Amino acid sequence: MLQVGVIGTGMIGQDHIRRMTSVLAGVRVTAVADVDTTVAASVGARIGAPAFETGEALIADPSVDAIVVCSWGPTHEQYVLAAIAAGKPVFCEKPLATTQDACLRILDAEVAHGSRLVQVGYMRRYDDAYRALKATLGTGQIGAPLMMHCAHRNASVPGFYEKEMAITDTAVHEIDMVRWMFDDEITAVRVLTPRRSSLGGELQDPLMLLFELSSGVLVDVETSVNIRYGYDIRGEIVGEEGTAALGSLSPVQVRKAGFAADPVPADWRERFLRAYDVEFQEWIDALRAGGRPVGPSAWDGYAAAVVSDAGVAALRSGDRVPVVLTEKPKLYETEVAALAPNASAVAAGDAA
Amino acid sequence: MLQVGVIGTGMIGQDHIRRMTSVLAGVRVTAVADVDTTVAASVGARIGAPAFETGEALIADPSVDAIVVCSWGPTHEQYVLAAIAAGKPVFCEKPLATTQDACLRILDAEVAHGSRLVQVGYMRRYDDAYRALKATLGTGQIGAPLMMHCAHRNASVPGFYEKEMAITDTAVHEIDMVRWMFDDEITAVRVLTPRRSSLGGELQDPLMLLFELSSGVLVDVETSVNIRYGYDIRGEIVGEEGTAALGSLSPVQVRKAGFAADPVPADWRERFLRAYDVEFQEWIDALRAGGRPVGPSAWDGYAAAVVSDAGVAALRSGDRVPVVLTEKPKLYETEVAALAPNASAVAAGDAA
Amino acid sequence: MLQVGVIGTGMIGQDHIRRMTSVLAGVRVTAVADVDTTVAASVGARIGAPAFETGEALIADPSVDAIVVCSWGPTHEQYVLAAIAAGKPVFCEKPLATTQDACLRILDAEVAHGSRLVQVGYMRRYDDAYRALKATLGTGQIGAPLMMHCAHRNASVPGFYEKEMAITDTAVHEIDMVRWMFDDEITAVRVLTPRRSSLGGELQDPLMLLFELSSGVLVDVETSVNIRYGYDIRGEIVGEEGTAALGSLSPVQVRKAGFAADPVPADWRERFLRAYDVEFQEWIDALRAGGRPVGPSAWDGYAAAVVSDAGVAALRSGDRVPVVLTEKPKLYETEVAALAPNASAVAAGDAA
Amino acid sequence: MLQVGVIGTGMIGQDHIRRMTSVLAGVRVTAVADVDTTVAASVGARIGAPAFETGEALIADPSVDAIVVCSWGPTHEQYVLAAIAAGKPVFCEKPLATTQDACLRILDAEVAHGSRLVQVGYMRRYDDAYRALKATLGTGQIGAPLMMHCAHRNASVPGFYEKEMAITDTAVHEIDMVRWMFDDEITAVRVLTPRRSSLGGELQDPLMLLFELSSGVLVDVETSVNIRYGYDIRGEIVGEEGTAALGSLSPVQVRKAGFAADPVPADWRERFLRAYDVEFQEWIDALRAGGRPVGPSAWDGYAAAVVSDAGVAALRSGDRVPVVLTEKPKLYETEVAALAPNASAVAAGDAA
Ligand SMILES: [Mg+2]
Ligand SMILES: [Mg+2]
Ligand SMILES: [Mg+2]
Ligand SMILES: [Mg+2]
Repeated sequence: MLQVGVIGTGMIGQDHIRRMTSVLAGVRVTAVADVDTTVAASVGARIGAPAFETGEALIADPSVDAIVVCSWGPTHEQYVLAAIAAGKPVFCEKPLATTQDACLRILDAEVAHGSRLVQVGYMRRYDDAYRALKATLGTGQIGAPLMMHCAHRNASVPGFYEKEMAITDTAVHEIDMVRWMFDDEITAVRVLTPRRSSLGGELQDPLMLLFELSSGVLVDVETSVNIRYGYDIRGEIVGEEGTAALGSLSPVQVRKAGFAADPVPADWRERFLRAYDVEFQEWIDALRAGGRPVGPSAWDGYAAAVVSDAGVAALRSGDRVPVVLTEKPKLYETEVAALAPNASAVAAGDAA
Repeated sequence: MLQVGVIGTGMIGQDHIRRMTSVLAGVRVTAVADVDTTVAASVGARIGAPAFETGEALIADPSVDAIVVCSWGPTHEQYVLAAIAAGKPVFCEKPLATTQDACLRILDAEVAHGSRLVQVGYMRRYDDAYRALKATLGTGQIGAPLMMHCAHRNASVPGFYEKEMAITDTAVHEIDMVRWMFDDEITAVRVLTPRRSSLGGELQDPLMLLFELSSGVLVDVETSVNIRYGYDIRGEIVGEEGTAALGSLSPVQVRKAGFAADPVPADWRERFLRAYDVEFQEWIDALRAGGRPVGPSAWDGYAAAVVSDAGVAALRSGDRVPVVLTEKPKLYETEVAALAPNASAVAAGDAA
Repeated sequence: MLQVGVIGTGMIGQDHIRRMTSVLAGVRVTAVADVDTTVAASVGARIGAPAFETGEALIADPSVDAIVVCSWGPTHEQYVLAAIAAGKPVFCEKPLATTQDACLRILDAEVAHGSRLVQVGYMRRYDDAYRALKATLGTGQIGAPLMMHCAHRNASVPGFYEKEMAITDTAVHEIDMVRWMFDDEITAVRVLTPRRSSLGGELQDPLMLLFELSSGVLVDVETSVNIRYGYDIRGEIVGEEGTAALGSLSPVQVRKAGFAADPVPADWRERFLRAYDVEFQEWIDALRAGGRPVGPSAWDGYAAAVVSDAGVAALRSGDRVPVVLTEKPKLYETEVAALAPNASAVAAGDAA
Repeated sequence: MLQVGVIGTGMIGQDHIRRMTSVLAGVRVTAVADVDTTVAASVGARIGAPAFETGEALIADPSVDAIVVCSWGPTHEQYVLAAIAAGKPVFCEKPLATTQDACLRILDAEVAHGSRLVQVGYMRRYDDAYRALKATLGTGQIGAPLMMHCAHRNASVPGFYEKEMAITDTAVHEIDMVRWMFDDEITAVRVLTPRRSSLGGELQDPLMLLFELSSGVLVDVETSVNIRYGYDIRGEIVGEEGTAALGSLSPVQVRKAGFAADPVPADWRERFLRAYDVEFQEWIDALRAGGRPVGPSAWDGYAAAVVSDAGVAALRSGDRVPVVLTEKPKLYETEVAALAPNASAVAAGDAA
């Protein structure tokens, strides 16, 4: 039984606690902490786990084998560094940290430690459909990948959502997904601004992002965050001999009032609920088996930050902005094999 | 933590042990038993659980809160009756028992006990797509149901598969699903025999089953068990104002070699893997919350047996065969509310 | 330029006149006739064609190369017989005649004439989708056909529609289509009556028809004629190794208000508009090339009448009713080759 | 009966002659001409039409009411100008002319004539699916358009195909379609070059084109001309409240060998066969009714040339290239109403 301490008991933290308590196997939440100690105490009481005064105290406690960080973004760095200092595995919700420098400090600390302790919460890598897509690509049946078309659509966003969040909060999922899908780095970013939707107030919405990969693969991403009809995540890889796309996934088709209609998910919770479960179960299983985490690494968190910053610069300037990464530590090179997708049986077939 | 004893450690038993050990929350397998005591000992050793000489000894042991029966069909009755006698909840893989009389003995025992202890392993009720279909029906958006068209297709079946198994092993899943979908009983069965597939040897395959429900709803079920292309489960409810059908669910779409193609699952494991997980998690959750099982009841197991027998008779005679059930004990009437579907958010919308 | 005389200038007659005047190549309407001579005169004036007092006079006129019969069903026999007597090709809208005996008299007359003159207006054989389906079947890629599932759904029907019309007017299209699709005869019919839709008043709607073919292929047809959501024609052939079904054919997909939705046609005009054009163009082309008609023959019209009568008897009795045809004249045997489908390039590929 | 003279009796010319002879109503080909007078004579003999020595002689002949130009691109200007000089309607296959200057000379001549005589052969405006898409947009159900995603994929291209042809021959169809779809002009073009397909030899394939419209709508077009799997034309308009896309249009769905598969057209002939028929029938109908052509105008031909040139410049430079059009003559302003789409009944419904 893996004993986990959760730092940050807000909405996401509580959801992960529920997940580790009522859904997943082999894990127990044995400690909680939050800057709001009243909330932490109340959440802890509900599951019979002590609430610690500080994240650092929680990390230090012997009842805690591994840490989940769900606190406010700007605090991620300090808790991740503390966990590394304690030699304990830490699962950090995205972003890894809020600046490139902070990410680099984490890389340095982990490299100094000598093996991976950090996993970042990019959950699309755990989604059945994305995994089937990566497995299909891996079979070679569509040939070498040349382009990928993506759309990331939200029915609506809250009032505090600002235009750069379309990159830093929304498209950042595509940034990580694309790096993982193609086992490659993004080398340049452009952002185009189409006609503005009147449903987003002053927000510049939608955006069209263009990512160049070192292999030459070109990725376009539409972000539309006020499109009303639902939450719709789409992706099609254009290969030399064919294409592979995310499927439709709707559990029912209704014929009604002049249409044959497939329901679209209402929001990301509905669409990616299972991906979060799988993400955590695999993290738990890896740690219980005595291994290191094999999900998104600190390097992935760092690269996402750099690409995201380049995207914001590209949005401001209207220009193509190159992405420049620091040299990749050997520690993360050796992780490549472990990142291979769990090829789904569904996708293993060949249409030819 | 619910402590479960598993009787029958063959393929299905081992799969459920894996599920309770590595996938689900709040459960531990604390005892195993099998007629092949060597297998039981080996499986038990792997998870650190004692192997009992007999199912009855396992049921009696205080380390066992609840029992899962995965043994050979003809032994189901004795273990279920023993569990009821011990006052312990028992999850029995389908069929509940191999004869109507045995099912009636179980009904009598459970009624005598005074509350539900038995759940039967019809897992389609736990499948996301069937649940979304039932939820869609429940919204009233397609009006009252009038017909349902079903297909149950297997790529192939093993050599020992005989023609009556198309009813007793294959269509029995539709028999249970239909009763649950419409909260209704099947009142008559017809079986028609189309042209025979040459791929099934001497087997009479496919079959066309026709079920009449007490509401007048007519259900047709195609069983094709040698259709090569994959495992394909389809269902469309025809309502007064529209229809609702199971969706396509394919995680990827491939455009390749002249086709835009959605993969079809290879077998029932792939298609219903998650339904088994949900089925057990909900059973575990209900028992841990101190409640009774709310899944398929002994009455459902009995009704499936009676309809299945009528189907076999109809296949033999070519005639319409009425289904005659015993009077339904009050115990099972009161379960109706608890059987309401978990309405999925996906399906709750209305196309109109 | 083929010179055509049209008998019956009601709605369908006028539509075919429009078609031959403004849509198709190589044809001119040179004569019209109708029991309502005022209507005939007015329609004729619009296109500059004389209106004849009687159908017989029109048939006899040297300005008429070929005849199209769109008059009231009970008059079909007399005009078809008169055309045969005149040795002129005649296209007769369905039904060929309103009784089996009348159909037999037409068969006798045409056989006595010694070559085909009659074509009956079953237009589904000219629909792109049905042709692609037949071509797919013909490639052998799904193996031998074993079953076919059909649905024939209308949004609503007029007040004078009576329950037997679900067979004689609605399912009669499936009767002809199935005979053509499988190059085979229907040998028995069953009709089941599901729960009745409240939207059809006293009408017994929907129905479930079951057709047995001499090869053993079993065909089920749902007729739902008050289903509100649109006009929906579906068909899936179950073969030994796979299935082939009519495609969805919707020109747009709309993502809106929680759904990804394909429009469904409103009525048969929208769905089969092109099939009527193709039906007539091929008939015109065959005649202009000096040949005989190769579309649905008088035998097809007769067989449809016999199966339709058996269907009505089956609806009344609830029993399986055998279909007994007279011996097939040699004249119609030799037409088989000419009836081969125009294999569409689309369908000629193989997914394997 | 419209009497048409065809200049250019190569493959496309012969296909249009076939169309006007055997498919369409109200038209007759009464004259042909080709630089290869032997071919012209042979084609003319087949349909009983005289072959003229020169296009100019054909245009002048009183047996010719209207002209169809299918000759080599560089000769288009001279024949179109000659037809205008003769005051006769002329249908010119795309391109209108091979240089912007030549297009301007045609505009000047037509403006001097005072009414429209010229139609250019951009046939996508006549495709059912594109029309349904435009009609859907016109209903307002997806709100104002903001973006459009397009793909133009060919299985392969001939050896003489050079990289600029991806713009001038391939994407030029999207250039015209987009201007028509949004009743708007393209104001700037970018061309990005993704990783190169190894199946196209030295060709820079695929390309990613980005068009800005004066309304701010942003259009992206993938051209992939060696993608092997088939000819695939896709388009999705992103509106404020939803999206509308071209449907799948496959006449059959095959379930076979692990997939549920929709066939993809093999080439543009199969995909757009009907659009050519409709294009010509509507042109014929307009002229027979005594009216002027209402299809793509000389202005449309000119605008396509300018945008296409800008695209080529953008491909060479890698920069954003503005599109600068001459002032639009009043003659073409007044045509706007006539260009309204034939709203399809299919698309007129609203999913909400
Ligand atoms: Mg995340
Ligand atoms: Mg089961
Ligand atoms: Mg007809
Ligand atoms: Mg063209």
